[in-house]
Amino acid sequence: MSTPAHRPAVRVAVCGAGNVAGALMQILQKKADFLAKTNCPITVTKVLVRDTTKPRPFVLPEGAEFVTDFRTIVEDKEVELVVELIGGTTDAKEIVLRSLRAGKHVVTANKALLASCMAEIEAELLASGGACQFGYEAAVCGGIPIIQTLVHGLAGDDVVQLAGIMNGTTNFMLSAMESEGASYDEILRVAQEKGFAEADPTADVEGHDARAKLCILTRLATGARIAQEDIPCVGISKITSDDMSYAKASNSAIKLLGVCRVEGDELEVFVHPCFIKNPNMIARTSGATNIVEITSSSLGKSYLIGEGAGGLPTANSVMSDIVAVLRGSTAPPFPPLNTSFRLQRNFSARFYVRMNVRDCKGIVAVAGAVCLRCDISIFAVLQTPIVDPSDLPFVITTEVCTVAQVEAFCAEIEKEEWCLRAPFFMPICRNDGWGRGPASGPSR
Amino acid sequence: MSTPAHRPAVRVAVCGAGNVAGALMQILQKKADFLAKTNCPITVTKVLVRDTTKPRPFVLPEGAEFVTDFRTIVEDKEVELVVELIGGTTDAKEIVLRSLRAGKHVVTANKALLASCMAEIEAELLASGGACQFGYEAAVCGGIPIIQTLVHGLAGDDVVQLAGIMNGTTNFMLSAMESEGASYDEILRVAQEKGFAEADPTADVEGHDARAKLCILTRLATGARIAQEDIPCVGISKITSDDMSYAKASNSAIKLLGVCRVEGDELEVFVHPCFIKNPNMIARTSGATNIVEITSSSLGKSYLIGEGAGGLPTANSVMSDIVAVLRGSTAPPFPPLNTSFRLQRNFSARFYVRMNVRDCKGIVAVAGAVCLRCDISIFAVLQTPIVDPSDLPFVITTEVCTVAQVEAFCAEIEKEEWCLRAPFFMPICRNDGWGRGPASGPSR
Repeated sequence: MSTPAHRPAVRVAVCGAGNVAGALMQILQKKADFLAKTNCPITVTKVLVRDTTKPRPFVLPEGAEFVTDFRTIVEDKEVELVVELIGGTTDAKEIVLRSLRAGKHVVTANKALLASCMAEIEAELLASGGACQFGYEAAVCGGIPIIQTLVHGLAGDDVVQLAGIMNGTTNFMLSAMESEGASYDEILRVAQEKGFAEADPTADVEGHDARAKLCILTRLATGARIAQEDIPCVGISKITSDDMSYAKASNSAIKLLGVCRVEGDELEVFVHPCFIKNPNMIARTSGATNIVEITSSSLGKSYLIGEGAGGLPTANSVMSDIVAVLRGSTAPPFPPLNTSFRLQRNFSARFYVRMNVRDCKGIVAVAGAVCLRCDISIFAVLQTPIVDPSDLPFVITTEVCTVAQVEAFCAEIEKEEWCLRAPFFMPICRNDGWGRGPASGPSR
Repeated sequence: MSTPAHRPAVRVAVCGAGNVAGALMQILQKKADFLAKTNCPITVTKVLVRDTTKPRPFVLPEGAEFVTDFRTIVEDKEVELVVELIGGTTDAKEIVLRSLRAGKHVVTANKALLASCMAEIEAELLASGGACQFGYEAAVCGGIPIIQTLVHGLAGDDVVQLAGIMNGTTNFMLSAMESEGASYDEILRVAQEKGFAEADPTADVEGHDARAKLCILTRLATGARIAQEDIPCVGISKITSDDMSYAKASNSAIKLLGVCRVEGDELEVFVHPCFIKNPNMIARTSGATNIVEITSSSLGKSYLIGEGAGGLPTANSVMSDIVAVLRGSTAPPFPPLNTSFRLQRNFSARFYVRMNVRDCKGIVAVAGAVCLRCDISIFAVLQTPIVDPSDLPFVITTEVCTVAQVEAFCAEIEKEEWCLRAPFFMPICRNDGWGRGPASGPSR
């Protein structure tokens, strides 16, 4: 409709030849008619690989060649659009920055690159004076259109909180722990056998993957540029089947959340396993599915739910960015920088605290006294019937307090002779939110 | 980033001064700084009203005037963008078509206009050769970014099914019937008293509002242009508390759904109250909230959930379209027309059929014989203990069959002397879908 004259095919280079690249080739082939009909014809001319002899999960499109040196792409004046799917922050960074510098449009699925080099990418885009388009929908939560929703859909709104399940592997594991009552180690082994978790699962289970995504979403939702290393991050490896039992008993689910909350001029940003009370869409999202809950001034609460990873969902987001580039838009890919926010690492919430103790007299009295010293109000004391008196989980939930208060409590408890190991805690999200401000009511 | 040179404010005319217009004025004022910072400055110069003396829920922006004749807007060469919020299909149609003809960008929240005049609007946009941008995110499901997701996010995907709760009033009513066990009439009265339902609730409760939205979404999801009058449409007014009891007993919820399914070269499009089995995100969406479930080749199932109506959510979508227009995009607002689909009004599903009968011998035998004649396989026979033998709800659920088969069954049953009134039926959605194809297994 916009450009009735037929134009020659846009030459595209794809960097990477793995799972996502294969799915993208499949989509490009399937949608060739659609692309021609909408005057967005594409020709893939170069595919960057390390080894041209390795078998690939796709057939090289006609007229395309494998190349092994990214400079042949960056320096190819005929390539108008570079799709970066190799991941990592070394070669990928060179490819993205040098392609932009050469006046090419770039589409990437690389969350690590975005999270670590967003400022440099933004500077390069600014230097291009709007000549280069940049798409990165695929970098966060695969097939969920969260980038587009934050950049375009909420352009006239103010996000006050963003919270969600941003890592499918850990949600698969937590869901399996919940439904099967199995231990973390057992479930991790199963997830690795099934290919859901990697041989070194650290990036997923310790929350680093979710943190990179949260870093990008925080930039988009609030305008603030927070270094990912500064975001408090706790993973799921210390969650036990006892925690799952307590969650079930209190009609809750345990989810690894990325959270960004605006509190005045402070931002509370963290990745943490959280207790979520039912009924809540986040608590009900199980398996490898991702969900992002957005709370904003105009919309109240809204939710985006879908497959957060996988070849086809991620390739679909790459494809939607490619089409957007070809259709042409002068919209800036990042919102204006907001430097007025300060990161508050010492976030506030109600907390669940599990202590593992050797059963003896006086534990409740000591826990109560330590709470009093830390100015923590106890909301409830939970203790399931004793199974093993030599290693007994003993749980308290708190009124609203800060994570520093809870850490101080845990440090004191850990010194007690009956405390077997460092206590483990999680923020609690109720339906009325996380709670905030000083603890109210008398300490119990 | 894209247009570093500061540009003069874009002159905008707003047609309408009701709830959404008031919320838009509030957002425009609040985001004036943001708009200036992102080089999207806006000045509202004209606001179209019927009566300039009537008090309004907003203060007229500085430099703006009330006008009562839309021609003063259409003929104002300085107005670059017209926001149509008056609703209806008479003046609104003139405003939209004549504004486009005059080379102005148009943003509208008018689902009735889109559903009835989409072809004319598309023709006008085509005639403008891409010079005019057209935004209509607010026309369907208020604050949910469903238009953007279908047009941009799924540009490279194939939607195979779209189903959702597209009307907040009826979902509020059904949720209240479910939780309070009250009758349809009681809940309608409460909804009217609270202002959730209009004095004449026909458009909501008979499904016409949802049908207009479904008509628009079908165009976007499949490319097919289906006249809204051709879409089979049944509302919620015949649902009883007995249906709610049966739903609860079978771990299901009753929701008024708009559904569009691609089956080969046929489209099954309908608005109907449906039985939805838990666990399913649609079954769990209660109150005035809207949800759209999209099933597509690349993404599998994804969901968008949020407030489907209300001043601020709708105004937010209007605002996001305004910002998109100001940022500039040459993307066509509608996908290419697909004329290869044929509307199949005789859709297939499993069905719930409620008969209200006077208790007597032989009812089950007759129902069974009629099913056999209609080639319907019975999946289950449900009868709650008899409360009132003079008006007894008697329910069967079927294996997959067509709506024509169920209608034939109902017509035959209605002739029976013991049948008190026309039977009522609903499609059943299980987690594995709606079912399709010929009924399998022996008829019981």
